[in-house]
Amino acid sequence: MSAGTIYGVGLGPGDPELMSVRADRLVRDARHVAFFRKAGRSGQARAIVAGMLRPDAAEIAMEYPVTTEIRFSDPRYNAILSQFYEGCVARLRDLADAGHDVVVLCEGDPFFYGSFMHLHSRLTDLRVETVPAITGMSGAWTATDSPVTWGDDVLTVLMGTLPEDELARRMAGSDALVVMKLGRNLDRVRRALERVGRLGAAWLVEYATMPKERVIRLAEAGETVAPYFAIVVVHGQGRRP
Amino acid sequence: MSAGTIYGVGLGPGDPELMSVRADRLVRDARHVAFFRKAGRSGQARAIVAGMLRPDAAEIAMEYPVTTEIRFSDPRYNAILSQFYEGCVARLRDLADAGHDVVVLCEGDPFFYGSFMHLHSRLTDLRVETVPAITGMSGAWTATDSPVTWGDDVLTVLMGTLPEDELARRMAGSDALVVMKLGRNLDRVRRALERVGRLGAAWLVEYATMPKERVIRLAEAGETVAPYFAIVVVHGQGRRP
Repeated sequence: MSAGTIYGVGLGPGDPELMSVRADRLVRDARHVAFFRKAGRSGQARAIVAGMLRPDAAEIAMEYPVTTEIRFSDPRYNAILSQFYEGCVARLRDLADAGHDVVVLCEGDPFFYGSFMHLHSRLTDLRVETVPAITGMSGAWTATDSPVTWGDDVLTVLMGTLPEDELARRMAGSDALVVMKLGRNLDRVRRALERVGRLGAAWLVEYATMPKERVIRLAEAGETVAPYFAIVVVHGQGRRP
Repeated sequence: MSAGTIYGVGLGPGDPELMSVRADRLVRDARHVAFFRKAGRSGQARAIVAGMLRPDAAEIAMEYPVTTEIRFSDPRYNAILSQFYEGCVARLRDLADAGHDVVVLCEGDPFFYGSFMHLHSRLTDLRVETVPAITGMSGAWTATDSPVTWGDDVLTVLMGTLPEDELARRMAGSDALVVMKLGRNLDRVRRALERVGRLGAAWLVEYATMPKERVIRLAEAGETVAPYFAIVVVHGQGRRP
């Protein structure tokens, strides 16, 4: 018996119709389906594939031991997360060793700021296939109904977790902008955009491609904490014949 | 009779299995299919959907009047391209006015450096729907079998058409890099990466997700002109528990 394959399957921005044909088939055929979730929650990746799994699919919920309770600058953070990923990998390895394929559900694109990468880097001795997907940011700029980049525009992708000065400096120097990992960083992102005169051009996109989709000018968005599925987009203004 | 809808349908990086479920359905059901191509060529977008169209689908080939024969800095370039896009739009508008839906095939993601944007911006009075897709860059970094961004990594997307000094400056200042529009700019991109000490970490990915896929260290790639489907990737090295 040969060992099974671990598939890191990108699910895209949220609308199940935006999964790739390959991802759709892998998910529907899977006998073993693993996914990350916050403890006590149903999990966003699992929610995207609701109604798609085989009735006999075995589900492996991998529950984060921490999310935002410990700051990532805390030395305990890396140790706890590392131990968690090792445990996940052990479960996947046992299944693969027993000859089973496992589909790991990944929101967005697995190799673009995704948790699957922490499994992938630990599974170098197994057969692992990664299926790319539509990124959350593609879902977001499509929701604004306006192209994000034209001609020679430079696009910079920033995490809202960066310091305000760095955010402002990079925001000033780029044509088009995407800011992710907003959450409780939303106010800092807003201040940084305002400092460099770009707040008026910024859009806040929540739940892109999902039923709760909301597109609003960031300057007019009242909230100070963004939902998990939220992305800021500033469109480039490059060459256009 | 109501007017038809123009669908800008992203096809993704090249592998037809990486089209979204929605794109797959729209393409297979379409009665009118439009696509850009270079005059005298079959067209890359059309090639991706080979074997997928209805036998009775009407095809609308939109042939670029110029590609690289005139530099985009030449004032004639914008005038010629603008006239071309106006002509394309007139054809699509006639079909929509006659009640037909039209699927416009788009390589990659339509709103990310795509030609469809030039139709979209001219079709504001019609019903237009844009279907996002897996970007060529997602296909490229997935082909390297290594995540492109971790933790707080900053990703910068650059066009190879930019001046060498600007390329070098931006390459030095970003964690992860993607460089597109390589073509005859490949040598300049290589020199810029070398100037900032990042050539050794750069990968050249050609025809990602397609049968001719090739992944090679840019420093070891002999060619000075890259094929149309080529992307340079430098992976970020951010936080990873």
